Amino acid sequence: MRKGNLMSVRPDIKVLDATIRDGGLCNNFEFSDEFVRELYKANIKCGVDYMEFGYKASRQLFKEEDFGKWKFCKEEDLRAIVGDNISDMKISVMADVGRCDFKEDFLPKSESVIDMVRVACYIHQIPAAIEMIEHFHSLGYETTCNIMAISQAGTSQVEEALNMLCQSSVNVIYLVDSYGSLYPENASELSKIYINAAEKVGKSVGFHAHNNQNLAFANTIDTLSYGVSYLDTTVQGIGRGAGNCATELLLGFLKNPKYNLYSILTFIEKYMLPLKETVSWGYDLQYMFTGQLNRHPRDAMSFSADGRKDYCEFYKYLLDNE
Amino acid sequence: MRKGNLMSVRPDIKVLDATIRDGGLCNNFEFSDEFVRELYKANIKCGVDYMEFGYKASRQLFKEEDFGKWKFCKEEDLRAIVGDNISDMKISVMADVGRCDFKEDFLPKSESVIDMVRVACYIHQIPAAIEMIEHFHSLGYETTCNIMAISQAGTSQVEEALNMLCQSSVNVIYLVDSYGSLYPENASELSKIYINAAEKVGKSVGFHAHNNQNLAFANTIDTLSYGVSYLDTTVQGIGRGAGNCATELLLGFLKNPKYNLYSILTFIEKYMLPLKETVSWGYDLQYMFTGQLNRHPRDAMSFSADGRKDYCEFYKYLLDNE
Repeated sequence: MRKGNLMSVRPDIKVLDATIRDGGLCNNFEFSDEFVRELYKANIKCGVDYMEFGYKASRQLFKEEDFGKWKFCKEEDLRAIVGDNISDMKISVMADVGRCDFKEDFLPKSESVIDMVRVACYIHQIPAAIEMIEHFHSLGYETTCNIMAISQAGTSQVEEALNMLCQSSVNVIYLVDSYGSLYPENASELSKIYINAAEKVGKSVGFHAHNNQNLAFANTIDTLSYGVSYLDTTVQGIGRGAGNCATELLLGFLKNPKYNLYSILTFIEKYMLPLKETVSWGYDLQYMFTGQLNRHPRDAMSFSADGRKDYCEFYKYLLDNE
Repeated sequence: MRKGNLMSVRPDIKVLDATIRDGGLCNNFEFSDEFVRELYKANIKCGVDYMEFGYKASRQLFKEEDFGKWKFCKEEDLRAIVGDNISDMKISVMADVGRCDFKEDFLPKSESVIDMVRVACYIHQIPAAIEMIEHFHSLGYETTCNIMAISQAGTSQVEEALNMLCQSSVNVIYLVDSYGSLYPENASELSKIYINAAEKVGKSVGFHAHNNQNLAFANTIDTLSYGVSYLDTTVQGIGRGAGNCATELLLGFLKNPKYNLYSILTFIEKYMLPLKETVSWGYDLQYMFTGQLNRHPRDAMSFSADGRKDYCEFYKYLLDNE
């Protein structure tokens, strides 16, 4: 049932660094160009397969002056960092269903340094996601569909969603544990369902973890052992709320010698430690609560933003407002 | 192969709180009586099955004035906290092979509030551990044997150790991931070997995790799913270096209604948050390195004690000194 073992190399594995995109949710996408450029260089040295630069958010819905540039990932901003991206590492951006002017904001692939567009949606938005995916394919991009908040979907919904996606042009179907509420046993059961459906039609499966219960890394390597091949990580786990699976944990685990831990350590020492002084993320009790209760982390994020430490009151509030 | 599932109650589960014992390694066992008493009361309310108060260390090898009292766990000090311990929660202490005057320092069980003695040893010390175990049994105690640093033992060593222990009077055989280097796949493979041996002779298996790779909770619930029943936790994961499996994560996971999260939250808010201001523990890069490299955390602990942040230099040092 497991694919490979703890000693073997799985050539199908792709590590996707989502530091700027998911981490951008912690600092309003306000990373300096130096930060992004040094991360780009570090990722290349470490053998990372894809680097996600941010969102392609609608400039009609969101004002450019309210956010850092990585919420919009304009072609010229990407090129200011990567030039023509002559590296082997591919570049991805995320497009949210309903928050993206996908017909206007994407160049044909031949004119863009973007390689892959990841379409994020809730499970009821799959038809809208597929419309976007087909558009991106017609432009020449690789695509993924990241179905969020999967821990709240029913089995038949999941089956139907997979069914629809398997008939589309999408390359990778992502299992997204948005609430950090999956245990490895759940995550791997779900991933087996995804893999069974995807493999038949030559598609791959990805996993995006959240660390609410300190299980982001564990869930990532458990699903990978059952055949998930696209693995999202962020440096030091930076990401909304409890954050994500840490790149350095995964790079230390993978056996393929193309992956290398050292370069990301240099980046951490020089860029992440100073960032941590002003931006906060990571496992804490308030996120554990929402993970255990299978809830959106928004209340926990407000709790953090308000600098509250009255965990008991907050827990009672959550129980009273299920 | 798995015992029960994510919805079921496993009546064989025993949660053992090792906060004072493993946490004592972070603060020289200098907890106030109020702290220990409130933890004792919180553990009872939470449904914790065993509370470990500390070590029974040799007063010939260690000077009493150099440590807090929980390094020695004298009967009068225990009774000052628990009286006759009229609760259902049992009390354990740890005795290290070679660091304990076991023939002098233990009363007959009928005269002590201690219920269980946990004998900790390295795998080559099993014969010495068994001598202690038989002595504690003759005094009337429950016993465990905690075989440390198991990630460095060979398969045949493990088999021989289990063989010897299965012929002894020991009640529980513990798998101890001292270096925090096991992945869930390793931990559950090893636990299956322990369980196969132990079940035939009516013994139980326990697991003690370390959090070097943020896997303490994941490894605990993975081994439990394969039949491990004694589960060590500490409040907020307090423990040497990267710490242990957090009680609050496990209590939120277990489905038996006897376990209750809320009382430990009150304790955390009132006692752990202030403690964290002066005592440090928990996942960090230096511990991740030693976990990934399957090494004793002593160098990482010195790195922390010296307040160093030059992770790259430290990592190179570890690679140069394998």
